[in-house]
Amino acid sequence: MAEYIAPLEILIEQFRLLPGVGEKTAVRYAMSLLHRSEEEVARFADAILGAKRDVHECRICHNISAGEICPVCADPDRNRSVLCVVETPQDAMAMERLHMTDWRYHILGGVLNPKRQLTAEKLHIEDLLERVGKEEIHEVVLATNCTFEGDTTAAYLHKRIAAQYPDVRITRLAQGIPVGGYLEYADPITLTQAIQGRKSL
Amino acid sequence: MAEYIAPLEILIEQFRLLPGVGEKTAVRYAMSLLHRSEEEVARFADAILGAKRDVHECRICHNISAGEICPVCADPDRNRSVLCVVETPQDAMAMERLHMTDWRYHILGGVLNPKRQLTAEKLHIEDLLERVGKEEIHEVVLATNCTFEGDTTAAYLHKRIAAQYPDVRITRLAQGIPVGGYLEYADPITLTQAIQGRKSL
Repeated sequence: MAEYIAPLEILIEQFRLLPGVGEKTAVRYAMSLLHRSEEEVARFADAILGAKRDVHECRICHNISAGEICPVCADPDRNRSVLCVVETPQDAMAMERLHMTDWRYHILGGVLNPKRQLTAEKLHIEDLLERVGKEEIHEVVLATNCTFEGDTTAAYLHKRIAAQYPDVRITRLAQGIPVGGYLEYADPITLTQAIQGRKSL
Repeated sequence: MAEYIAPLEILIEQFRLLPGVGEKTAVRYAMSLLHRSEEEVARFADAILGAKRDVHECRICHNISAGEICPVCADPDRNRSVLCVVETPQDAMAMERLHMTDWRYHILGGVLNPKRQLTAEKLHIEDLLERVGKEEIHEVVLATNCTFEGDTTAAYLHKRIAAQYPDVRITRLAQGIPVGGYLEYADPITLTQAIQGRKSL
């Protein structure tokens, strides 16, 4: 027999398009679906189509949203003076899960990465600059990831914002040893940053 | 904002129903779909519905099949005297990938596991016994997994087949140290079986 029968092969290929899914995992997913009822399988297909149909991008912050404006931007009780700049909607979700800040967000849609043709024009940078002025922002928290690209993007944004709005405070999340981390196993760059950023007790 | 917007939440829940998928992975899958075109997303949903609609169970061996009878059972060139009994269609696929045997298969649909209410009546055992007689099988290879349940099921099948067909050869796949395996790290049961099953050179 051919390795897989055609309708299964098609489904396996589709599962392989998901991030990080190899053949073995795709087969496992596909086989698990065959064991579900037709109704359950229809629910899965509907959820896929429904998410693509009903999830939009917030007109203000570019976060994902069911409506034209996301709940954070629509919330009148949010702090209107601090803007937290993140790479992706997932990053904003991670912040929201803390229930710690009442900042609003601006989703860049990625980071600068010339190798992957991700230049400043491809990211939501121009309207970030516009928002800072129009919304009278006092502080911009540059919460891009602590990666090479995240740092580069933060440095670029810092330069751009400082040039246009010299009075706006621009901050970056602290870097250092994560909680539970050992100095022995920390990479040299993290350890260097932890030393340079050391705090008085 | 709520942790996820509704249409995304529904999709994340659906992805979590896949085997071994936790929340983080489900979110990653869901977000990756939002970045695809509507056409690509429709293809994914179609593949799911199509697989459920078009994948059937072979009337003879219970393997998955596009038609009423699977290609292996329909193939006149297959060895008609050896029947290889496996737990799942995936096990048959693993055997087929070797291109080593021309045996036909019989898919049990699981293993005996009283804790999970998997009793002999729930598995395709009665028609296995019927096939052995009707198809004039000379050898039944009990290729259930080398787990406690797989061994128990093989022992049960051995007893049933031997009682009904005393002349049929009944075999089990060899157990021992896997290729590339070290004695030092082999578990005691595997090592014991490797010793007991040692071969003359």
